[in-house]
Parts: sequence; C-alpha cells; structure tokens
Amino acid sequence: MTNRVCQALGIKYPIIQGAMQWVSDASLVASVSEAGGFGVLASADAQKENIRVEIKKVKRATTKPFAVNITIISQTAKDILDVAIEEKVPFVVLTAGNPKPFIPLLKEAGIAFLSVVATVKQAIKMEELGASVIVVEGQEAGGHIGEMTSMTFIPQAVAAVNVPIVAAGGIATGHGMAAAFALGAEGIQMGTAFMVSQECTIHQNVKDALIQADSGDSVVTGRKHHHAVRCIANELTKAFATLDEKNAPVEDYAAIGKGATYKASREGDVIHGSVMAGQIVGLVNSEKTTAEIIQDTIAEYNTVIRQLLEMS
Amino acid sequence: MTNRVCQALGIKYPIIQGAMQWVSDASLVASVSEAGGFGVLASADAQKENIRVEIKKVKRATTKPFAVNITIISQTAKDILDVAIEEKVPFVVLTAGNPKPFIPLLKEAGIAFLSVVATVKQAIKMEELGASVIVVEGQEAGGHIGEMTSMTFIPQAVAAVNVPIVAAGGIATGHGMAAAFALGAEGIQMGTAFMVSQECTIHQNVKDALIQADSGDSVVTGRKHHHAVRCIANELTKAFATLDEKNAPVEDYAAIGKGATYKASREGDVIHGSVMAGQIVGLVNSEKTTAEIIQDTIAEYNTVIRQLLEMS
Repeated sequence: MTNRVCQALGIKYPIIQGAMQWVSDASLVASVSEAGGFGVLASADAQKENIRVEIKKVKRATTKPFAVNITIISQTAKDILDVAIEEKVPFVVLTAGNPKPFIPLLKEAGIAFLSVVATVKQAIKMEELGASVIVVEGQEAGGHIGEMTSMTFIPQAVAAVNVPIVAAGGIATGHGMAAAFALGAEGIQMGTAFMVSQECTIHQNVKDALIQADSGDSVVTGRKHHHAVRCIANELTKAFATLDEKNAPVEDYAAIGKGATYKASREGDVIHGSVMAGQIVGLVNSEKTTAEIIQDTIAEYNTVIRQLLEMS
Repeated sequence: MTNRVCQALGIKYPIIQGAMQWVSDASLVASVSEAGGFGVLASADAQKENIRVEIKKVKRATTKPFAVNITIISQTAKDILDVAIEEKVPFVVLTAGNPKPFIPLLKEAGIAFLSVVATVKQAIKMEELGASVIVVEGQEAGGHIGEMTSMTFIPQAVAAVNVPIVAAGGIATGHGMAAAFALGAEGIQMGTAFMVSQECTIHQNVKDALIQADSGDSVVTGRKHHHAVRCIANELTKAFATLDEKNAPVEDYAAIGKGATYKASREGDVIHGSVMAGQIVGLVNSEKTTAEIIQDTIAEYNTVIRQLLEMS
C-alpha cells in the first residue's frame, strides 16, 4: 500500500503513533518508525534538554522518519521547537494552540508539519498554514478531546480540505482502519493500542488496566469546564464527578488533576492516577510488539475490504 | 446485496429509517419501506388511536415491512404495544427502557422486535431477550443520546453479540455505510438524512436549517442532568447552556424544553424550537426523495468498497 500519507511522511504503512505525555518516549517512537509506521515523541511541558536526549535516542535506534509533538500552549513550546530544529528532526506535529508564529521558523529549517485538529474549521485553517497532513481526532480518543466523533469528523474534514487526512480516535484494529479509509482518510493514528505494546515503557499496571477494561469503563471528565479528558473510570474520575455535582471552581479540578498522568503512567497508580485511554479500549486485549500491532492491523485491513467486496 | 438484516426484516436494502418524534409519520415510513428500506413509525407519547391511523395509512401505501417504535418509558407504551398487536404490525422497535414485560406479549402475537441500545451491556441484554436485530446508536445521532461513539460502539457490540447489528449515529452517505460495514455492522439506520427527504412532512424551515448547517452547528444539551440531546445550536440551546452555567435544577430545563420538538418540526420555529439532528448534518445538503437517498447510498457504498480494494 502506498498513498499520499505514506508519500508525505516517507513511511511504509500509513499508521501514526499518537503523541502521549509520559507514554511516547524514544523506546515507543523508534520501534513504531522502525516497524514502518510513524512514531511521534511527546513533549508537552518537558524541558528542552530532556527532549534532546529522547531525539538522540530515537536517531540511534532508527534511521526512519519520526516526529516531535509540540503542544503550542505549553510554556516550553518554543524550546521544543528550537531543539527540533537544532537536531534536524524531519517532522513536527503541532497540537493545542495557534501554530502561526512557528510556521516561518519551520519553513526556514525545512521541517514539514502535521497538525492535530478537533474541528473542521481548524482543519481548514491548518491547510491554509501549510500542514502536510492533518490528523482529525475524534472524541473517542483518550486524553484531551473535542466534541466531533470520528464517524462524522473524517468525512466532513475530507470534504473541506485537500491535504491528506489521518483519522485518530477510536481506532485499534484493521476494522477501524478500513472504516476510516471508507470515510476518506488516508492514514490512521493509534494511541491506546500502542500503549500496551511491549516497547511502551509505561507501568505494567496501566497496561493491565487497559487490557482488562471494556468500553463501559471509558469516561469523560472536565466537560463542564471545557477541559474534556477521556480516561478509565477510577477513584480520580469519581472525584471529578463529585466536583461536578458540587459545582466546584476549576481550581479544585486542577488541584486533584496535577501530576495525575505521571502518577498512573510512571508510578503505576491506576486507582488515583489519570489512566488516559480511548473508548476502543475494550478491543485492546493483549500485549504485542509494535511491529505485530502494525502488521496485524494491515493484514486485518486487507481481509476486511476483501470481505466487504464479497458481501456486496 | 442480501445479508442477515435483510433476511430478518424481509427488506431489499439494509437501511433503516430511525424513529423520530414529530418526524417519522406514515408518509416518511411508507416511502422508505416502499423504496426497499425499513420505515419506522415514531410513537413516543402519542395516543393509541392516532398511531392506529398512521399504521393504517402505511398499510394502504405499501405492502412492505415496517415497524412501530415503542418508547418503553412512555406513559402510553402499553397502548402502543396493544395497537401494534391489534393491527398486526410485522415488527416493533423497542427503545428507552426495559422491554422485558413486553416480550411475552410480542411472542404470543408473533411480532419480532428490534432494539435500539446505547451500551454494549444493553446489547447483550437485548440479545438475551430475543431481539432479531440490535441497533447500536452512537452519540453522533440526533436527539436523545448516550456516550458511546459509532466508531468504537459498532465493533465492540459486534464482538459481544451474535445477532446482526445495525449501526446508527453519524451515517448519511454510502461512505458512512461502508465504514459501518467495515466495523462489522450488517445494516445502517439514518435519521437526519431522511428528515430532509421530500416525503418527510416536517416544516420546511427545519429542512432548510439542516441543509444549511455544518458540523460546528451540532451541540449536545442536558449532559449535566444525564439527559443528553443532540440538536442544532440556536436560542434554545443557548438557554440550556445558560442554565448549565447557573447550576439550575432539572425542572428549569424541562420548562423551556417542553413542546420544543413540536415547535420546530411542526410549527417551523427553528430559533426557539428543538431542531434535533446528527453531527453528520454538514453532509446533508439537498432535499431528495427517500428512494433517491436509498439508491444513492447503496451506489456510493458499492463505489467506496471497490475504491478501497483498488487502493490496497
């Protein structure tokens, strides 16, 4: 298979690993890229030199393309941009904020960018700014989410822009990939599926929690304060729900949410930490290598579209 | 095309028209069934004799299968069940509530039932109760919604039950049908697409509003009180948002919501009425006959799956 996403990113399979704070480090990123997909380093509020270390690790492990994610609203966003340019990273992924000030710097450095968006309007804006690929993320995704759902977002984004669309949110299998492509996407992004990969360095408790969880365990917190986050129901999400009931101010949410992702992902506290995962979690049932995840997804994709033809 | 949904319902195309209060009357239902799909009469809180009139109208207009929707929590649910039995309606669709008490009566009358569900757990329950077909409705649907999204709900329901699954929520085109089938569905249900059909008798203002709306106009009200409804943003949805901000009691919502669907659908007040529609509304761009909607959807479906095969 080759298509515009493969060509734009220089990859074999149009499968992107979504950037996940405290999850997508050099180990995960390098393994995805080496397996023919597209790894994306998370940076969020990280310090510049820490990200430089991760970039160097990826480069030692693979010569294949990868990206660094830049969370534009982060206080260290400009630092991360600088280190990406200094280290000649081939691509950056721009998320959460207006990337306009960064565009001239990227152009000058010859770095192409992908953009993750939550609305059709943002997709149109990112095409105007020169994004090579636009990742449309449905609210079935884990972590910070918008309101669009993949089933409706993908085709409406495809209808609105000409650059290739990658579908994110709710995809963990070849069935999901076939659905996304039926809606006009030319690539998929997976997060939850890669969290339980062998190369992912998160705490085993989180992997076990995801493998055990089913769709009913997926909840959204923070909608009231327009800070919606999808994660696995636990004591933390109950505490957020209690704040909702009490009509508590946003500061109360921040107080219990601070450091919660680190607590789960790195310390293994899946009871009081934030276990971010997508609504497709019920179909993530075993730990595999990233290469197996990618190969299985592509093989299933090919099977599904042949079955569709036979049925028609 | 034939499959288990076509066989179970005795229809040519596995396309169901979703029951919509003040929208899916005999005119819409008969036209969908006559065109080879499956029309479903809405009943909600209607009086028994009014529904009898609609059933008789459908029967005069078509000899093909159709169903009456029964909203189980409605005060008139038992009356509607009785008239469905008296009029020997071939199928009923059971929604919103526990249908268990109705099952022996349906069995005795030889009436098969479909069930609309919002969670995987409900799907399993409805299979146990003997549903012929289970409609899994994603939250991208218009009207009253749950939390699951179609992209994740369809495959997780398919994995959990053996009866055929019909996908509802976010589908208005052959692309959406192909996506649903890629995820394992054997039929689709459409609502918004049929609202703008020529045979639909709702006020022209509503059809015009849907044709003009894009995905950004789709909002969800009432989540705070676990009474989520998806509709088109207008003065009514702003008023609900204001109640959210004020932390108002549920009675205040009921006061402004009462009769709001009738006001829009029948009186044409799309500013203060409730204009229920799905998140796919941006792809609903013209008024067609129900036969054209069905034929175009099937033709596009066939084109899409052939394109997928060519690209692979």
